Amino acid sequence: MIGDPLPTEKLEGQLLPKRFALPIFASDPLSSVAYAPQELVMILMVGGLAFLSFAPWVALAVVVLLVTVVASYRQLIRAYPSGGGDYEVAHRNLGEKAGLVVASALLVDYVMTVVVSVASGVDNIISAIPELNPFRVELAIVFVIILAAINLRGVSESSKAFAVPTYLFIGSVFVMIVVGLTRTFMGDPPVAESATFGVEAESLTQAGIILLLLRSFASGCSALTGVEAISNGVPAFRRPKVKNAQRTLVLMGGIAIVLFAGLTAVALISQVHYAEDPCHLIGWSGCATEPQRSLIAQVAAATFGDATIAFYLIQATTALVLLLAANTAFNGFPLLGSVLARDGYAPKSLSTRGDRLIYSNGVVILALAASLILLIFQANLTVLIQLYIIGVFVSFTLGQTGMVRHWLRELSRLRHPAKGAPKRAPRADPDDAPPLTRGAILRALVINAIGAAMTAVVLIVVTVTKFTHGAWIVFLLMPILFFLMMGVNRYYRDVEKEIEVDPTTTFGATGDHAIVLVGRMQKPTLKALDYAIAARHDSLEAIHVSLDDEETKRLKKDWVKQNIHVKLRILNSPYRDLSYPLITYIKSRREEHGSEVVTVYMPQYVVGHWWENILHNHKARRIRQKLLLVHGVTVSLVPWLLDSSDLLYGRRSRPLPGQDRRGEPVRPVPRRPVVESNEKRRR
Amino acid sequence: MIGDPLPTEKLEGQLLPKRFALPIFASDPLSSVAYAPQELVMILMVGGLAFLSFAPWVALAVVVLLVTVVASYRQLIRAYPSGGGDYEVAHRNLGEKAGLVVASALLVDYVMTVVVSVASGVDNIISAIPELNPFRVELAIVFVIILAAINLRGVSESSKAFAVPTYLFIGSVFVMIVVGLTRTFMGDPPVAESATFGVEAESLTQAGIILLLLRSFASGCSALTGVEAISNGVPAFRRPKVKNAQRTLVLMGGIAIVLFAGLTAVALISQVHYAEDPCHLIGWSGCATEPQRSLIAQVAAATFGDATIAFYLIQATTALVLLLAANTAFNGFPLLGSVLARDGYAPKSLSTRGDRLIYSNGVVILALAASLILLIFQANLTVLIQLYIIGVFVSFTLGQTGMVRHWLRELSRLRHPAKGAPKRAPRADPDDAPPLTRGAILRALVINAIGAAMTAVVLIVVTVTKFTHGAWIVFLLMPILFFLMMGVNRYYRDVEKEIEVDPTTTFGATGDHAIVLVGRMQKPTLKALDYAIAARHDSLEAIHVSLDDEETKRLKKDWVKQNIHVKLRILNSPYRDLSYPLITYIKSRREEHGSEVVTVYMPQYVVGHWWENILHNHKARRIRQKLLLVHGVTVSLVPWLLDSSDLLYGRRSRPLPGQDRRGEPVRPVPRRPVVESNEKRRR
Repeated sequence: MIGDPLPTEKLEGQLLPKRFALPIFASDPLSSVAYAPQELVMILMVGGLAFLSFAPWVALAVVVLLVTVVASYRQLIRAYPSGGGDYEVAHRNLGEKAGLVVASALLVDYVMTVVVSVASGVDNIISAIPELNPFRVELAIVFVIILAAINLRGVSESSKAFAVPTYLFIGSVFVMIVVGLTRTFMGDPPVAESATFGVEAESLTQAGIILLLLRSFASGCSALTGVEAISNGVPAFRRPKVKNAQRTLVLMGGIAIVLFAGLTAVALISQVHYAEDPCHLIGWSGCATEPQRSLIAQVAAATFGDATIAFYLIQATTALVLLLAANTAFNGFPLLGSVLARDGYAPKSLSTRGDRLIYSNGVVILALAASLILLIFQANLTVLIQLYIIGVFVSFTLGQTGMVRHWLRELSRLRHPAKGAPKRAPRADPDDAPPLTRGAILRALVINAIGAAMTAVVLIVVTVTKFTHGAWIVFLLMPILFFLMMGVNRYYRDVEKEIEVDPTTTFGATGDHAIVLVGRMQKPTLKALDYAIAARHDSLEAIHVSLDDEETKRLKKDWVKQNIHVKLRILNSPYRDLSYPLITYIKSRREEHGSEVVTVYMPQYVVGHWWENILHNHKARRIRQKLLLVHGVTVSLVPWLLDSSDLLYGRRSRPLPGQDRRGEPVRPVPRRPVVESNEKRRR
Repeated sequence: MIGDPLPTEKLEGQLLPKRFALPIFASDPLSSVAYAPQELVMILMVGGLAFLSFAPWVALAVVVLLVTVVASYRQLIRAYPSGGGDYEVAHRNLGEKAGLVVASALLVDYVMTVVVSVASGVDNIISAIPELNPFRVELAIVFVIILAAINLRGVSESSKAFAVPTYLFIGSVFVMIVVGLTRTFMGDPPVAESATFGVEAESLTQAGIILLLLRSFASGCSALTGVEAISNGVPAFRRPKVKNAQRTLVLMGGIAIVLFAGLTAVALISQVHYAEDPCHLIGWSGCATEPQRSLIAQVAAATFGDATIAFYLIQATTALVLLLAANTAFNGFPLLGSVLARDGYAPKSLSTRGDRLIYSNGVVILALAASLILLIFQANLTVLIQLYIIGVFVSFTLGQTGMVRHWLRELSRLRHPAKGAPKRAPRADPDDAPPLTRGAILRALVINAIGAAMTAVVLIVVTVTKFTHGAWIVFLLMPILFFLMMGVNRYYRDVEKEIEVDPTTTFGATGDHAIVLVGRMQKPTLKALDYAIAARHDSLEAIHVSLDDEETKRLKKDWVKQNIHVKLRILNSPYRDLSYPLITYIKSRREEHGSEVVTVYMPQYVVGHWWENILHNHKARRIRQKLLLVHGVTVSLVPWLLDSSDLLYGRRSRPLPGQDRRGEPVRPVPRRPVVESNEKRRR
């Protein structure tokens, strides 16, 4: 009676195997390899070429941090496999406010992921095709529009088209690193085109030197962005979910470290000199007119030769993987939205699957915000990176701190098993996670404590070094989002109070009158009339509000011609207004008949194209809105399916943004059987 | 029973007396005095100072054209007093396509009215306060946003706040002209600050000289914009409508001529030298950094002295009247929209009064388009003027041509009274316009023929001289709008065909089952249940789709506790989807019971703030959309008025954009009586 029984294998079949999970979740963190080494080197070069000798150490610090963060998230995945990620951890362990701080940080970060990834993608395209340099901003915005269009249309992330570029990127950059290192060991190291350039160095005080090193480290930390994505998508993995998610995380972390360290090494070997202001490079005459090629492009050109097929392949896969990374934000955003909505901090409509309208609004807002930022900052990667990683580290720090609190509570529970309600999330997959021993908890506690401490330090460093470089904007936006979410929560709470039932209820409505609203003699009106007759109300009448004497006369004639036995009442409208005479009539009826229920039947067009909604139903909606304010009135919508509504059936099977990351079963959508649409036309 | 009888005096009282009609309709045409002489002089100066001797003749040509156009519109008002203006005339006399060309021209023109008026207003503010020069674009966009906000909120044009600035502008500019001319006759002519500047002249061929004179004339013709506004607003005038409208038109034309000619004269006397590129002025060192002051500002400074109270008054009233002119576009647009909707070329929802949502969309679109154009062209008045008057003259020319056709038809009707159906618009006010004599028709024919010929020539001149200066954009936009309106019309025609009734109808639905959708135990659900019980359907059941076992259990308990005797059916949802189990259930019922009508009751929240709609009703809307696709289903919305819905009553009395120009009676809105909201809470 209620749909096919749920075939378990089918459900499992909709979940992600690791080979698809890796590209879906890893395109964001791996793509940062395309800009993190470059920004690291660039900041160091502000102090002069000599500072490049610090680069390996700064890179090492980033790698150590990356290892720590990956280890921390392994613990987080085990403890909170329900997909709430840092937000859930902070919310449950540190309270509502901490959770909302994380949520607002993540929201800002989704926008910045789009912005930075697209800006870097365009930068790498321009590095391959310098003729496109004058159209940097335009290209970036076009890419944002394309991504938005793809997500508005609906496309599944777990398709091969999305998996291939990530694997190609990993493979080709890895080969490049191996070739570069092999050539070095063979005594023929690659030499970058900028190797001969000097740089105008700022003279720095000792404090300035330390600050510069810290800034370089902070920029290198952009390599860590996106590591948290897997912790939000655990439900999407196949069983055993936690184990598979953890393995994918570690694999991703390993690849990220190899690519980051390898690329930095080859860049330093081949002496890529990359400056914040290209005209600070000594020996380059074209600095004002030509674009400075990205670090990865210079390494590729040095390793494989300029304008070779391998060079173009590296640039193409790099640009592609960066655009995929931007795409992840469009998919991750609804996921966070649904978690926030479940907890009552975002419109409830975000919590349920399948509302294309809601998703569309989200996609459009994300695209507009990203385009605006790209426009304001002229798609300048270096400036944009300054705004980027604040949000990431806010959520890292609070998430890890929450984990520390979580393990401390677990420990105290082991000691006093009776005390305290279980604060843990319900396990998505109970057989997946055996209860932890004291030793395992202690180990996890230490790992997360180190993670929390390190990310907190980095957050401070990042804030101090970037605040005046534009990061203040992030600190302005986050509180706004925070208070918006707070407001939504308080509003829902008040409404909940307002509609709470009283201890006892008496059903008081009596009487049952029905009105069919008639404009002109048309099929939808007749269908409404048919339904109203079938519902056998105590009394039924058709009402026409007369705005035009000619039309009223024609309707009366048609009424007789169609041989309709329902009484047709004509209401005059001195002010050419449809709803007012109707409302006055209903009110006067209710004065006579007491608390009578009046059902007003109105035809409602069902259409297939979004733009048809502009052309239909507005008059009906307006009348409905006014009628709904009248006591005792209920409005009955009788659907009329226009031919175009057939299209709805085809469209319903399109995937929604973020669907593949949720791991919820999706009901197979049956196509509309042909016979039904004929039945419709028979009415 | 159907509202208070219509008090005729009250209706008349809502219409516009001439003293309010003049500022409402004249702010647009009169404000063009602020830029037309300036653009006229500026173009001439491209050829050198000597060319200024042509200025009186060019200005004279503009005045002659203005007289002709005013005379032509006097005829148009008499023949078509229903307020459709040029669009209606072209549509009725030259056919659908000509009508749509006029409509698309006018739509483009509404945007350009906002853009040009705001740009000129900001220019005049900067002329008074040069410190604001760096913020030209920002200021312009802020003004557009303010105008949009005012119109979204709703404000009546026929308030004193709107009338005063126009009268002040007329008065102060008139005084300025008189003072300037008086000083000249007294032998102490005013001298402009730019009088001593020379100008770098282009050397011109003979053809170039003619082209320059034509360009100057074309720019001067911007003085004519807005003259047509009165012909769109005849219904808003008090009786006798046609006479009053004609008188207001002539008065407005007279004032426009006096101000335009007077200002041009004083500007030439005081030797205002205004250049397209200020650095072409010889003798002005500050050209690159300081803004060039507007012609009207230079005249005011020369006449009254710089930085005097009179100078600031002129600048302030000029800026104000320009902003009012921009405001007219926000009011005129819905008026045109309603006429187009009536004829089926625009969404029908535009045709009915009172849909704030529709108006809001229109206001927002207009504001966005204007802001975008201001941004792209950097609020540069001279460039923007190039895009402006194309649309005006397209509608002038087609309107006048239509009038010629109209009078020819009238003539032939006088000769053969039997022939041809009356093609004239139904008279708004029959006693207002006596039948015309042959002589009167002939005179009108001649006037409109001259008008048509002259505006056609100007249209060609304007197109030729401006096409490459940016006017091509207008020629790109107009066809797009044209085909959009065509498409809307064809769509409506197809739907009309689809829903046409068959010759005979049988009412086939039988059976009457009702379902109340229950989520949680809350007051709105109980109200829906109450109404469903009152409607006494053949069978009634409550249905809960179970997504969460806990909640279902709680609901069952509450159901018993509230002592509800309606059967509660629980449907399981394997895919966590609300509508699918429900639809499957209804379909299986209908398989058993045949063509049964199933009424589904759903609570609907009624809210008072627009943003509350983001937080409510989405889940209900989605379920409703899916239910409406199921055969035999009708959805009954049972309203639940949240406390905030009280606000709707206050808001309903706010005026809508364009309301004052329509001349339709507006029903006085009763405020919500307090007792009602208590009755609501009792339920």
